[in-house]
Amino acid sequence: MAEQRALTPRAEDFSAWYNEVVQRGELAGYTPVRGCMVIRPHGYAIWELMQKALDARFKETGHQNAYFPLFIPQSFLHREAEHVEGFAPETAVVTHGGGKELEEPLVVRPTSEAIIWPIMADWIQSYRDLPLLINQWANVVRWEMRTRLFLRTPEFLWQEGHTAHASQEDAQRETLLMLSVYRRFMEEWMAMPPLTGVKTEWDKFAGADRTYACEALMQDNWALQAGTSHNLGQNFARAFDVKYQTEDGSHEYVWSTSWGVSTRLIGGLVMSHSDDLGLVLPPKLAPIQAVIVPIYKSDEGRGQVLEAAEKLAGQLRDVVRVRLDDRDTVNPGAKYYEWEGKGVPVRLEIGPKDLEKGQVMAVKRFAPDPKARKVPIPDGEVRSRLTEMLDAMQNELLATAIKRREDNSHRGIDDYEEFKEIIATAGGFVYTGYCGTEECEASVKDETKATIRLMPDEDFRSDEIPAKCICGKKAEYEVVWARAY
Amino acid sequence: MAEQRALTPRAEDFSAWYNEVVQRGELAGYTPVRGCMVIRPHGYAIWELMQKALDARFKETGHQNAYFPLFIPQSFLHREAEHVEGFAPETAVVTHGGGKELEEPLVVRPTSEAIIWPIMADWIQSYRDLPLLINQWANVVRWEMRTRLFLRTPEFLWQEGHTAHASQEDAQRETLLMLSVYRRFMEEWMAMPPLTGVKTEWDKFAGADRTYACEALMQDNWALQAGTSHNLGQNFARAFDVKYQTEDGSHEYVWSTSWGVSTRLIGGLVMSHSDDLGLVLPPKLAPIQAVIVPIYKSDEGRGQVLEAAEKLAGQLRDVVRVRLDDRDTVNPGAKYYEWEGKGVPVRLEIGPKDLEKGQVMAVKRFAPDPKARKVPIPDGEVRSRLTEMLDAMQNELLATAIKRREDNSHRGIDDYEEFKEIIATAGGFVYTGYCGTEECEASVKDETKATIRLMPDEDFRSDEIPAKCICGKKAEYEVVWARAY
Repeated sequence: MAEQRALTPRAEDFSAWYNEVVQRGELAGYTPVRGCMVIRPHGYAIWELMQKALDARFKETGHQNAYFPLFIPQSFLHREAEHVEGFAPETAVVTHGGGKELEEPLVVRPTSEAIIWPIMADWIQSYRDLPLLINQWANVVRWEMRTRLFLRTPEFLWQEGHTAHASQEDAQRETLLMLSVYRRFMEEWMAMPPLTGVKTEWDKFAGADRTYACEALMQDNWALQAGTSHNLGQNFARAFDVKYQTEDGSHEYVWSTSWGVSTRLIGGLVMSHSDDLGLVLPPKLAPIQAVIVPIYKSDEGRGQVLEAAEKLAGQLRDVVRVRLDDRDTVNPGAKYYEWEGKGVPVRLEIGPKDLEKGQVMAVKRFAPDPKARKVPIPDGEVRSRLTEMLDAMQNELLATAIKRREDNSHRGIDDYEEFKEIIATAGGFVYTGYCGTEECEASVKDETKATIRLMPDEDFRSDEIPAKCICGKKAEYEVVWARAY
Repeated sequence: MAEQRALTPRAEDFSAWYNEVVQRGELAGYTPVRGCMVIRPHGYAIWELMQKALDARFKETGHQNAYFPLFIPQSFLHREAEHVEGFAPETAVVTHGGGKELEEPLVVRPTSEAIIWPIMADWIQSYRDLPLLINQWANVVRWEMRTRLFLRTPEFLWQEGHTAHASQEDAQRETLLMLSVYRRFMEEWMAMPPLTGVKTEWDKFAGADRTYACEALMQDNWALQAGTSHNLGQNFARAFDVKYQTEDGSHEYVWSTSWGVSTRLIGGLVMSHSDDLGLVLPPKLAPIQAVIVPIYKSDEGRGQVLEAAEKLAGQLRDVVRVRLDDRDTVNPGAKYYEWEGKGVPVRLEIGPKDLEKGQVMAVKRFAPDPKARKVPIPDGEVRSRLTEMLDAMQNELLATAIKRREDNSHRGIDDYEEFKEIIATAGGFVYTGYCGTEECEASVKDETKATIRLMPDEDFRSDEIPAKCICGKKAEYEVVWARAY
């Protein structure tokens, strides 16, 4: 078939490859609205699985969902000085409504702190109302000039948690709890193991005291900021006068946090696992986990094979998300190509020969050893073997991604020439000592385009940290550098 | 407690009562954004249950979710003449993005036909791609001047189905299928039995060939349009050039439909069942189906009672959505008041006396016979009796609502004086013969404020239809009139 063109290989042009994988997998596409994307059914189904897993975890940790207005009066965005500085330049602004010019323009939310806090202030009277643990699933708009599907588009979907606490310690505990929820989700569901740590002062969320982040390494050795968790201190409480009465009757500002992940995660998923044949999905996030492709030549064979395929689908339906592709208008080869491009973890082929042998041929979309992709399974064992196969694939994808991250992590670098050489050729995460000044990062960034992704948490910190920064000054702490999306 | 104020009774001021029920139930509130609401956690949890039930039914009927841009280039809205006439006057318009004036203003979607069809046009080549069955869960904005929580606010949440078909018949079948999906959901989940039927030519969706609707009767005997399903003919296909190649190789415009329900349903739910004590929820849509309230006076009693309450919660957790209210800072009376206002279907009280008797006291939020609200249940039977009780309550709410609708339906009315008398006093659904002219409805509306809600489907049509319209002319068909939200 004419459409069965090979993708641009990753090694040749990663960016072209990425776009082709997204298009071939029918995950998303551009639209007549400049830079905005449409999330197509297969891409949206992945997002739904992500939402379900995250939402369950948010609820387990005591959060409730709510929904706040899309629009923020422009003056509200200006109440927190750093916040407006960070977000005002990239807002979309509604100036007319119902045919009339508005008295005050409304900003389409780029994030919701500036509308959530004036509203939630009314929900908080006393310490008994704390902690207040709220999450919102919503669309947000940040006017971007350079756009990429899932990674950077003016509108995207996300969740934003907003919580209020009675003490600094409680807010900090929440900030770190949600960081760990994100990390576990990325590891266990996405098989995308991120580094976690804290951002520098000048790279934190506009209005935060401290920003923690998950940074994952893509196959091109660039980093992707995949989720952030912010300790907002009392900044927004002061800006919007959010106070509570303490047990002893005094009135204090609350301590707040916010945290979010977005449809950007789908871009990270693509760049973590997909190969030159197209999309590869970890089974837990695959909308279709197994596709059954019946193979027949004659009308006579067709009946028998289809009957077996339907029986198999029936047996599997309650243990995996299975799809029987019984279209008569498409040949098996074209079906293989389509489901491969959509990242279906296991293809189950049933033909006359398989019927004779009492087996099904399972073909794995991913295997650490590519020669081990085809596995015949005896009829009676498909249910158990398939679930084992999917579990194993989930684990193998994670192990492969951890190995790739570690293989591409360069620790203990203290020589700037070596640093430049790594960034320019290998890429990856480069761990160095750091003097702690903004000027140093700015100059390294100017020359190499690498930026400080984070100061690693203790889980990722090196045993020995170089005594000097790559600029030659004394190192204050360790940081991780990378080129980043 | 000071907050335990009685609500304004329904009979006294239905509108004030409605607002108080919504506020007391913590379902929603107004915000600093003119007319816009915040959906609070308890209200949002109801919406999540609605979404889950509807989404499952959409998927069972072959639909897939996707996500399209929030913004519509203004010129696109103008492509379908009737569509722009209907929606342009109530749009919110983005004129600036990223600090610059846009070359073309962007409309915040009031509904998505004008952005979905130019995008989906690319997904359709041949008859093999049809039907294309898509749904979107999203926020939309329609600039409203008179606003009411859930019923009429500038921004609301909804789902909008958009489908393309190869023939007029297929599109019509889909339109009616989704109308029946809505009707069943309203009956079986919301216990809010609607009339179904078709709208008049001048009351249909802007751009549709035919609009079908679900109209439910509220307790004040006003009608609420609760869901609509539109056969769009080839109107949008022509406007956006959406064609497919037929089996014989010619090119034809597709036939399309759209259909939607919104957070307005929550308003309908409130006005269908709630009483002068506050919210009443059908168990299937109650975020908390049973609340356990432990009752104790001394610290000694506390341990025993709490232990029994926790044990009970553990026994119930996998069969109902149960909440143990073990707050020490709130007394039992205040807890009763709070959960009553939030519409929790069953309260389970456990005190020292109940422990002695080996029972739990169940108190139903709704019972056809108010004297039968309190029911002691022996310890070992709570699981089974509680689920029976919830099922029964769901059915009783539906039966009560059907009876109320029928008691307030006036059939065979052909005298205009009688019609006016009914509308002015009793209200409800008034079935009449109808001459079929727009002028007739306009003049009746001017005088009585009643409008034609729909021409009833055969399930609701009267056995005998008056020969003449209330205007005295010959009747062409039957219609149902009501005052409406």
